[in-house]
Order: sequence, then structure tokens, then C-alpha cells
Amino acid sequence: MTSAEDAAHIADVVRDPSGETLVAARTVGPGVPVLAFDVGGTDIKSALFDADGTALGLRRTPTPAADGDRTAVLIDRLGVLAAELQADHPDVIPRAAGLVVPGIVDADAGLGVFASNLGWKNSPLRDLAAARLGLPVAFDHDVRAASWAEHRLGGARAYANSVVLVIGTGIAGALLVGGEPYTAGGYAGEIGHSPIADGPVCPCGARGCLEMVASAGAIARRYRDATGIAPDGAKDVIARAAAGDPVASEIWDSALDALTLSLAQLTAVVAPEAIVIGGGLSRAGGALFDELRARLTARLSFHRIPALVPAELSGNAGILGAALRARELA
Amino acid sequence: MTSAEDAAHIADVVRDPSGETLVAARTVGPGVPVLAFDVGGTDIKSALFDADGTALGLRRTPTPAADGDRTAVLIDRLGVLAAELQADHPDVIPRAAGLVVPGIVDADAGLGVFASNLGWKNSPLRDLAAARLGLPVAFDHDVRAASWAEHRLGGARAYANSVVLVIGTGIAGALLVGGEPYTAGGYAGEIGHSPIADGPVCPCGARGCLEMVASAGAIARRYRDATGIAPDGAKDVIARAAAGDPVASEIWDSALDALTLSLAQLTAVVAPEAIVIGGGLSRAGGALFDELRARLTARLSFHRIPALVPAELSGNAGILGAALRARELA
Repeated sequence: MTSAEDAAHIADVVRDPSGETLVAARTVGPGVPVLAFDVGGTDIKSALFDADGTALGLRRTPTPAADGDRTAVLIDRLGVLAAELQADHPDVIPRAAGLVVPGIVDADAGLGVFASNLGWKNSPLRDLAAARLGLPVAFDHDVRAASWAEHRLGGARAYANSVVLVIGTGIAGALLVGGEPYTAGGYAGEIGHSPIADGPVCPCGARGCLEMVASAGAIARRYRDATGIAPDGAKDVIARAAAGDPVASEIWDSALDALTLSLAQLTAVVAPEAIVIGGGLSRAGGALFDELRARLTARLSFHRIPALVPAELSGNAGILGAALRARELA
Repeated sequence: MTSAEDAAHIADVVRDPSGETLVAARTVGPGVPVLAFDVGGTDIKSALFDADGTALGLRRTPTPAADGDRTAVLIDRLGVLAAELQADHPDVIPRAAGLVVPGIVDADAGLGVFASNLGWKNSPLRDLAAARLGLPVAFDHDVRAASWAEHRLGGARAYANSVVLVIGTGIAGALLVGGEPYTAGGYAGEIGHSPIADGPVCPCGARGCLEMVASAGAIARRYRDATGIAPDGAKDVIARAAAGDPVASEIWDSALDALTLSLAQLTAVVAPEAIVIGGGLSRAGGALFDELRARLTARLSFHRIPALVPAELSGNAGILGAALRARELA
């Protein structure tokens, strides 16, 4: 790809398929200017946060494709995005950058340990990004960074011990213990890939992963597979269930049961004060939160039932977390 | 009960039904002398730890019975046991006491929040014991104290992040995070009362609790219910399974599957470096550890499989933990 093609590609800002409007994120508060990148398998969110903490040039662009390990094309793309942000805002000089990515992340070592849809294994993303950007880079897991943002700015503010779940295409989680992220070398919080049944086999290789049954993506896929009708996302399946469609009802009911089992495990073992739920499915509102609260309470006994609260930062939690992490470096 | 009857009752040291020999515990190391009590629903272990850290007069006596809340009879009994230990060892003057109890325990507030088989609710056990003994009292949950002892002296020594499981009559657990107990106000670690299936209903009121299927007590009970034959504990059921008894095989297989599901949840979400397993079932050795390791590895994929290691302190971990906690006060 030439750099002209590349720039055109980046300019093609993707619409969020969930319909979420990507307007300005909340401020992260005053501090030094920082760059922030939230990298996913499909797209990258990028922005320059100014001294007031406002996101300038926030947008979503496609993650560049490559066979196998996408480290090199990603790092190059971050450089192009940074240069564009700098060119558009010459008076805002970033002093650090925050980079957050999915998968298994060893934040201390700066490594992307594993990410099925980005192809890397033990990729030294932090140091590569720092070299490309010429800035110190704070590096973290996307959902842990999002949970950090929810803890500092959003739905988890009131809780020192909480679990943040993002239920979208997949299901990702992050634990906060004593007000700090609990990482276990990057392996903690894989709630989407915790088993809740004997099947089906998940692309990750494990059996019965929660996200095969209960993610927004799985709910839509299961309905399509059962009926041949492609629903307009999980929210459409939930609406069909509410309208009496028996197939939609069974799928939504089994998804709620699977989520309840996972939340019950979390409640019994980790006992967070709150479980903060974001991602596409959280937009189901009471159909999700009231049902989960009732089923969890019915399922358990002496346990301390956590507050189930919606995430507040929506799709911007990851990039806000990246900016917060970068601020800690600068 | 008169105090003469009471003394006779205490002198009737109970044999451990698992056949475990209650010889001297390991030393807890040099320090000030302390009293230690590990209270269960059936019996109390008591000892006086001397300046070398050796347990003097270690024995197991029945927990006194009472209708409803057993706080008052327990506190009185602790006083009698302390007086006996003091009379037998007049030169060893304890400077503090450690008291550990089962159930939901708020260690910071000194409260026994709930214990189904001891009948209390929000009982101020720490302060009552301190008043009765005339000593500062360190108060904790029995399995958290046991896990602390395993971390300091036993099988969890090498691991900052670990989960200790005690699989006996029930299943209890405790989490260590960053080398410190993780308590969540006393609600964490209730792995035995985490759901793994839709049933059966547990005496705790929840459905499908792990300990209804996979504790040593449940394995023996399930075999008896299925065959009318009372086995000599879970180890007898495991031996019958190994010898080809199809009922025993099905029960042991389903217990292993249930344990695997819980350990897989723990691995995905908490990702401890090690899971330390004690209690009666841990004496099954390879029949337990090798099977769990193989099933857990087969069940998961990219996850970090924890080391599965036997507890080293056996039935004495609780009282050793109580002594360690008392030493921290003195």
C-alpha cells in the first residue's frame, strides 16, 4: 500500500456497526497532552487528548490487514495516525501515548502475548510503538484499560472491588481489586472464555465458553442459525423474544442463564461489590439488568449479591483508559 | 452442663474420622507464645504455641452443642481450654490468641457474620473471646487462615497468587492475591457454594453448589444413596471406581467433571499461579491431581493452567494459621 492509499484508507472512518455515535468522549481531566490508541481486530480508535483532557480528532479507522502477525502494519499505522493528529492540531504537543490492545497482554513486559485476531505472539508492542512515535508509551489490555476508565470516570467509580464486563461480539472482563487492576500476568478476567457448559467448541479451542452462548454476537448468530433469518443484532432477538417469538425467547433465556451462572461463580468466588456491564448487550437495559439481578438472587443464598450497573463510558472506555494510562507516564 | 461434666467432655479427645493422626504440627517459627483455636461445627482444635513455635497440648475436642446460636457456649469453652493449656504449661505465657471459625467472617470487624452449623449472625466473636481470655485476639476465617499457613509454611509458599481449596465434608476456598489474603468483606472464596449445574438444591439455599456433587462427603453420600451400601468415605468410592464398579465410576467421574468446571472458571477469571488442594479428598493423590490436571488442560486453551499442588499442612493448617495471625498481634 502506498502512503497515499494508506491515508485514503484511514480517512474512511468506519461507522460503528452497533449504531453508537462516536462523538467526543468525556474529558479525562486536565493534564499534559497525550495520544491514545484503542486497537481492535476490526478497527482502531485514535485521538489526541489536550491539556483539558478533551479528545481531539477522535475517530475509528480500520485495523490494517496482513497475513499472520499484524504487528508491523499496526505499528506503521499508529505512526500515520499520530502524524495526522499532530498535523491537525499543531499546538497540542503530546508528551506520551497510550496503546491498548485485546487478547492476552503482559502490560509490565510491554508484550502482546496472544491475540487470535491480530496474529501476534509475544510481540513487543510497547517498545515498537515508542520507537515509531518517539514518545513514551503506556501499554495495557483494552478491557483492563476500559475498566480503569470506568473506575476513574464511569460506572465503577464507587467501588474498590469490581468486575467490568464488556458484552459485545465477544465477552471480555477485567477485575479491580482494592482499586487497582488485577492482571495475573495478563491472564485474569477471561470471563468470555470461561466454560459454562459442555459445548459448543469455541474458536479459542476450549469447550462451552460463555461467549459462544451469551455474547451479543452469539445471540444474533444463534437466532440466524435456528431460523435462517438474520436479525438486526442481539437487540432485535431480545425484541422478538419480548414479542413472543419462541425461538428468540429460548435463545435469550439460555443466554441469560449462562450469564447468570458466570455471574454467580464470580459472586461466590471473587465477591465484587459491583459488576459493571458495558458493550452492545448492555444497551438492552432492564431486559438485561433486571433479569440478571432476579436470576442471580434466585440462584444464590447467603452470598453478597453485587450491584449490577451499566458502564457509563460505552465504546469510548478503552481509549479513555489508554489516555489515563498515558497521563500516568507523562 | 456443670464444669465437671464440661471438663470430662473436653478430655474426650475425638479421633479424626479421616484417620489423620493429630501429632505435633510443624513449628510456626520463633516468636512470642500464643494460644490458637480452630473452631469447626464438630470440633475445636486448640494448642499453645511456645517461643520456638511448637504446638503444645494440640488436641481436638467436641464443639459444645446448643440450640441456635452457639456463641456463648463456644466462648466459655475457649476459656476452659485456655485454662487447661495454661495449667499444663505454666512456664509458657501466651501474649495473644488466634481464633479462626468457618462461615462468613468479617475479620476486620471481628464478626462471625454467618455460619450455618454454629448458628450465629453477626456475632462479635473477637471481642467476646478477648474478654474471656484476657488477651488480644486475632480473628479470621478458618480456610483463609489455613491458606495463610499454606502460603507461609506449606504448599503455597512459592506463589504470590494462589487459591487454597479444602475438599472435605464441604468445599471451602481462599484466595491469595499479591501474597495477601483477598477477603471481599468475608464473602470471597466460596467455591463450594458456587453453582456448577442446575441442581440439586444445597442446604445453603442455592442450586447446584459444587460441594453437593464433588466434596468428599458428597461422593460418599451419593454412593450410599445410589447403592444402599455405606462406603468407607470418598477414598473407598474412588477405590471401587478403580476396581471397575460402574456406579462408583460414574460418581467419581461426575465429581471430577464438576471440580474441573470450577477450576476452569477460576483459571479463566482469577488465573492463580497455583491451586493448592487439601482436605480429605486430597489424600486421593494422583487419582485426583493427575485427573484434574488432564481434564483442566483438555477443557481450556490459551489459558494459563495453574500448578495443582497438594496442601502440605493437612488438617493442621487452620490452627497454624490461627497461631500465625496471633503472632502478628503480639
